[in-house]
Amino acid sequence: MKITAAHGSGGRDSARLMETVFGRRFANAVLDKMEDAAALDLHGGTPPGRLAVSTDSFVVSPLVFKGGDIGKLSVCGTVNDLLMMGAVPRYLTCGFILEEGLEIALLDRLAASMAETAAEAGVLIVAGDTKVAGTGGGLYVNTAGIGLIPAGRAVSASACKPGDAVLLSGTLGDHHACILSARLDIENPIESDCACLRDLTDALFARDIAVRAMRDVTRGGLGTILNELADSSGCAIELQEEKIPVSEAVRGFCGVMGLDPLYMGNEGKMVAVVDGADAEKALAAMRAAPHGRNAAVIGRAGEGRGVLMKTRLGGTRRVDVLYGEGLPRIC
Amino acid sequence: MKITAAHGSGGRDSARLMETVFGRRFANAVLDKMEDAAALDLHGGTPPGRLAVSTDSFVVSPLVFKGGDIGKLSVCGTVNDLLMMGAVPRYLTCGFILEEGLEIALLDRLAASMAETAAEAGVLIVAGDTKVAGTGGGLYVNTAGIGLIPAGRAVSASACKPGDAVLLSGTLGDHHACILSARLDIENPIESDCACLRDLTDALFARDIAVRAMRDVTRGGLGTILNELADSSGCAIELQEEKIPVSEAVRGFCGVMGLDPLYMGNEGKMVAVVDGADAEKALAAMRAAPHGRNAAVIGRAGEGRGVLMKTRLGGTRRVDVLYGEGLPRIC
Repeated sequence: MKITAAHGSGGRDSARLMETVFGRRFANAVLDKMEDAAALDLHGGTPPGRLAVSTDSFVVSPLVFKGGDIGKLSVCGTVNDLLMMGAVPRYLTCGFILEEGLEIALLDRLAASMAETAAEAGVLIVAGDTKVAGTGGGLYVNTAGIGLIPAGRAVSASACKPGDAVLLSGTLGDHHACILSARLDIENPIESDCACLRDLTDALFARDIAVRAMRDVTRGGLGTILNELADSSGCAIELQEEKIPVSEAVRGFCGVMGLDPLYMGNEGKMVAVVDGADAEKALAAMRAAPHGRNAAVIGRAGEGRGVLMKTRLGGTRRVDVLYGEGLPRIC
Repeated sequence: MKITAAHGSGGRDSARLMETVFGRRFANAVLDKMEDAAALDLHGGTPPGRLAVSTDSFVVSPLVFKGGDIGKLSVCGTVNDLLMMGAVPRYLTCGFILEEGLEIALLDRLAASMAETAAEAGVLIVAGDTKVAGTGGGLYVNTAGIGLIPAGRAVSASACKPGDAVLLSGTLGDHHACILSARLDIENPIESDCACLRDLTDALFARDIAVRAMRDVTRGGLGTILNELADSSGCAIELQEEKIPVSEAVRGFCGVMGLDPLYMGNEGKMVAVVDGADAEKALAAMRAAPHGRNAAVIGRAGEGRGVLMKTRLGGTRRVDVLYGEGLPRIC
């Protein structure tokens, strides 16, 4: 068996590879939790809080796109993974794999973009490495992040309970549609949503909302991410299609291209599962934050298993994880 | 200006790229120290010790070589960077960039090799990520590591003083010669020295040796690494050529290929600079450890600047950093 593009989709094939190779070979109590970031106890419980640690590699093509570039993306992606654990992001490492022929002026522009995004996110880049391989004139970036989880926060993919409310921070599909439009040279106003979601997580915690789980909606899309939460928590998630925000432009693009926003990758959107009693408070908190203006309560956790969606037409459809390729090199 | 293979050499061009792009864009008090790993104070000094953080990407070709593979290398490389800061390595993240066509059986073998090496080194793999890009059937690996620096340890590239002894843990050039032999299909018994150096650092600290600085001798070779130590510390380093260990096989290979062991990359060798009074004790400690059987005192720190070497013939030669390409994709 050989690696195919589908192994990079964030969907079913990625999960299989994770299980059969990495999960099996690297199995340990921390990794087995399958969170966005690892939560570590470094000093046997003495310090006030735990460490969150995460890593992500970025292979997006093109390197620069409307609304962002691989530099901004590589900081936002890892910072968001830390935030999704309830952590305050602190430090970032970055590893560059540069291809021969890459313009140094472009590299410098991307580094400037990383520095600016890191400053905005409040993280310090503390270690780095550069290698040269390949001759395509592009680059890959890896970032790893370290954050501090304040004492008492216990956000986890496995903490959702029937009755909880499921919130989405904004419109689906923007990053995916932007990248695909750039590759196909299609003119449209769609920009990537690439962003650091700290304003959203800060807003939720500042209002003492009982946050069960958070996850950024990246590769694999909302459908895959919600299935992961439902699986980890041993509950069902029931969505209402009409509540899921999608912009007019992306909706039009999806119609033409035959794409489903439920499986499109995003880089500045998150799901928050909160105590049902806090749903309205959480929605107000998210809507007041710059990256949550289009936030919506899109469903609730229920008894049972899997993800179900009440469609606009009144039917109920099972929402599975992404199968197959997805869009290669979307992040 | 475009990226060339020389930017990946670990020598002069790598350093220039570091200064002009990353150093300038990411400048901060931690990164500016230019150590093998960052030393971080996470809780304002409360806990007993600091965090060490490091990252490295691995692009070695071939993926499997005599004495190791990219999996083993990717664990040893980052673990060694943590050790060189006097840290006890604790956690590792790993990011994989897989090329389409990669055999999953090979990926599994490499993952098994990583798991085995991590277990030996005493580190836990706590976070990971997989992307698919390219079609060459190969892979790149990034690892980032977190360790704990025990209170009171202050190992730093800038801490060398005139009178200190400079020790090298073993023979030079083995990894470089092994990789080059594999690429050129040259039959010889040379194996990579790829190894985790924890036995050596444990041995030094267990005997209360006053360790000023440690550095693993990777890309760029001994010549480059010693210049970095001399520059950071504002002293000179004086070497004795006849004391520098090189195996018979590598010496022969270098003669034929026109290579200088001083600039060849290694993956299981380190330099330790210790108080001159502790030289013999440090040498005994290193020689008693499995990876230090061929350790030697190769010189001393002195007044002045740069690296000088007393040659076998009695002359004195200035040893500069590596210029130009080095061996591409050696690690």
